[in-house]
Amino acid sequence: MAQSEATKRANSEAQSPSSSIARFGEDAPLHLDAGVSLSPFQIAYETYGALNEDKSNAILICHALTGDQYCASVQPITKKPGWWETLIGPGKPIDTDRYFVVCSNVLGGCLGTTGPASINEKTGKPYGLDFPIVTIADMVRAQSMLIDYLEIETLFAVIGGSMGGMQVLQWAASYPDRVFAAIPMATGARHTSQNIAFHEVGRQAIMADPNWHQGKYTDEGVVPSKGLAVARMTAHVTYLSEPALQRKFGRQLQDRENVSFGFDADFQIESYLRHQGSSFVDRFDANSYLYMTRAMDYFDMAEDNDGKLANAFSGTNTRFCLVSFSSDWLFSTAESREIVHALNATGASVSFVEIESDKGHDAFLLDEPEMVATVSGFLNSAAKARGI
Amino acid sequence: MAQSEATKRANSEAQSPSSSIARFGEDAPLHLDAGVSLSPFQIAYETYGALNEDKSNAILICHALTGDQYCASVQPITKKPGWWETLIGPGKPIDTDRYFVVCSNVLGGCLGTTGPASINEKTGKPYGLDFPIVTIADMVRAQSMLIDYLEIETLFAVIGGSMGGMQVLQWAASYPDRVFAAIPMATGARHTSQNIAFHEVGRQAIMADPNWHQGKYTDEGVVPSKGLAVARMTAHVTYLSEPALQRKFGRQLQDRENVSFGFDADFQIESYLRHQGSSFVDRFDANSYLYMTRAMDYFDMAEDNDGKLANAFSGTNTRFCLVSFSSDWLFSTAESREIVHALNATGASVSFVEIESDKGHDAFLLDEPEMVATVSGFLNSAAKARGI
Repeated sequence: MAQSEATKRANSEAQSPSSSIARFGEDAPLHLDAGVSLSPFQIAYETYGALNEDKSNAILICHALTGDQYCASVQPITKKPGWWETLIGPGKPIDTDRYFVVCSNVLGGCLGTTGPASINEKTGKPYGLDFPIVTIADMVRAQSMLIDYLEIETLFAVIGGSMGGMQVLQWAASYPDRVFAAIPMATGARHTSQNIAFHEVGRQAIMADPNWHQGKYTDEGVVPSKGLAVARMTAHVTYLSEPALQRKFGRQLQDRENVSFGFDADFQIESYLRHQGSSFVDRFDANSYLYMTRAMDYFDMAEDNDGKLANAFSGTNTRFCLVSFSSDWLFSTAESREIVHALNATGASVSFVEIESDKGHDAFLLDEPEMVATVSGFLNSAAKARGI
Repeated sequence: MAQSEATKRANSEAQSPSSSIARFGEDAPLHLDAGVSLSPFQIAYETYGALNEDKSNAILICHALTGDQYCASVQPITKKPGWWETLIGPGKPIDTDRYFVVCSNVLGGCLGTTGPASINEKTGKPYGLDFPIVTIADMVRAQSMLIDYLEIETLFAVIGGSMGGMQVLQWAASYPDRVFAAIPMATGARHTSQNIAFHEVGRQAIMADPNWHQGKYTDEGVVPSKGLAVARMTAHVTYLSEPALQRKFGRQLQDRENVSFGFDADFQIESYLRHQGSSFVDRFDANSYLYMTRAMDYFDMAEDNDGKLANAFSGTNTRFCLVSFSSDWLFSTAESREIVHALNATGASVSFVEIESDKGHDAFLLDEPEMVATVSGFLNSAAKARGI
């Protein structure tokens, strides 16, 4: 399959994003958990609102697996509104009239921050699998360099869901003095066996696509679109919940009165999933998907702290607000509770809300009034304490 | 990829199975729900024990999606023991010293009953996608012809789990006078939206494999093994449960002290899934997998009965014993309860047991003492009533 216009656009955004860029040269290498250094590299980021005089009002938003820096602005490929406009904007809970909001594409991503789709200066070709494996801690290390670059000492808050929530936890652990408040949502302190399993299935689907070419598909002028679509479809089912699927789609047929007695998309859920798969391919790089899923799989904060999660947060002054969703079976409430227990053990300031919702893991991205109210209330109270 | 020895063996079992065969000629066409007839066709089956004089001791075992007729004898391809030897055999709950046990490969299967891998006599080539779509009711219709062929009027019991359980329910609905007792396990009266979703992902993985060739892979001398392996891996995750995965694998590494910072199977769960995928390919036909999943997707007994599940069983004299497993999230206890309510509404004789187990959907295939005791107790009591 030749490169579509969408693929060209995606490649262009990977190299020269529509957003701002912070470049780090040979003098500022990024030391990775894999034991190697990355240099040069760049971070693509968006900002909203203005930094106040004492630089106390900065909020860092961390995006999820397939998210990007366009949390509150139009995504340049899909032309869709920002993915978290429910929460972020003027007068919204994360009020851009009040806070300076920063959101960067994660390390290893494909929307302008250096990742496997970026051109390796040493070869003139995309890194592909020559890109080093990155961890959640590496992503956070890169973000801290961006925060330095923006001359911000302490973040008022770090907020994110799912893989974004992992980054929030890692920020609080790696840079406790730089995080005043933290909101990890729909997340866990380690990736479970089941979650690794679903990621592995997605990776195998991508790597099984002959167009993948051991990650060198751009050199071949093709895209492993079928494999990537299957990976996305599998993952997408895990982002929803059985009750939500039943309510939204049930066994309703798509544009027909009767089943076709064939393998067409008879059911609405089939048609929906196929659309999710094919539209994803236009905006996301297959290798980047491999790297993002691997970063999540490797995440285990207890393992990194002598088997004791509480050690990750000992002596922390950060105030935490954890949010989980009752029907989220990918990052269940039990996962959040483990974090709450660890934080309690260290005497940290912790709020925890489990929100009743049938919308599954995806709920954190949707307009859930109780979530909006929780974030708003917690941030207002933290802002008061911070004197903003 | 050239055909492996395993593939040749699987093809041979599809045409000329190691088990017994009942052949139905042009004079005995099978009328399918799709509105077409299948003829000629054959049913491959195994039997265990002996039919008693008044032919009152026959038990039909219905297999699941990727099961086969070898429920209590060695599988000819894998050389593994029968898949339900926990329950079936001399002195076991389904006692072959006492009962005459019949198990046939389902219509559309690939172990000797006519299906997409069978040679179409009109073309001399495998049917592939020219094979008509079959439903659970079609499978049961074919089985009833086998039961006629074996000169059995009434089955003492029909027993099966998952897709096998669907067949049990359909038997009770289609042939109420021919089923004395029924044990549908880990099943539902309709396939849910989430279950259709996971099946669709599997089908897309198979059809995305260029070796699939629109189902004509045998003509090309290849097998869509990568796609089929991905389909199996996805499905396999849904057969387990998060607690069981955590207990069995957790985040344990496979043959290494540290993660590889790469895409090898670092974690035991990855290695396990890859093995599940690759070994499945040796014993199962990719097209048959498409047909089996479709048959399950189409299953909706309420829809077939003016939207009311109870109508499917009105006036039934069959005694039912339903079994569900607490950690089964594919066919949850709620699904079994719906059937129990419908049966209660018709005044049927119903027992229902939810078995505490962390083993997920797969539990019905495993040595679960409470399941074994339930089947044993129910069958003994039914045998007494039947005068066996």
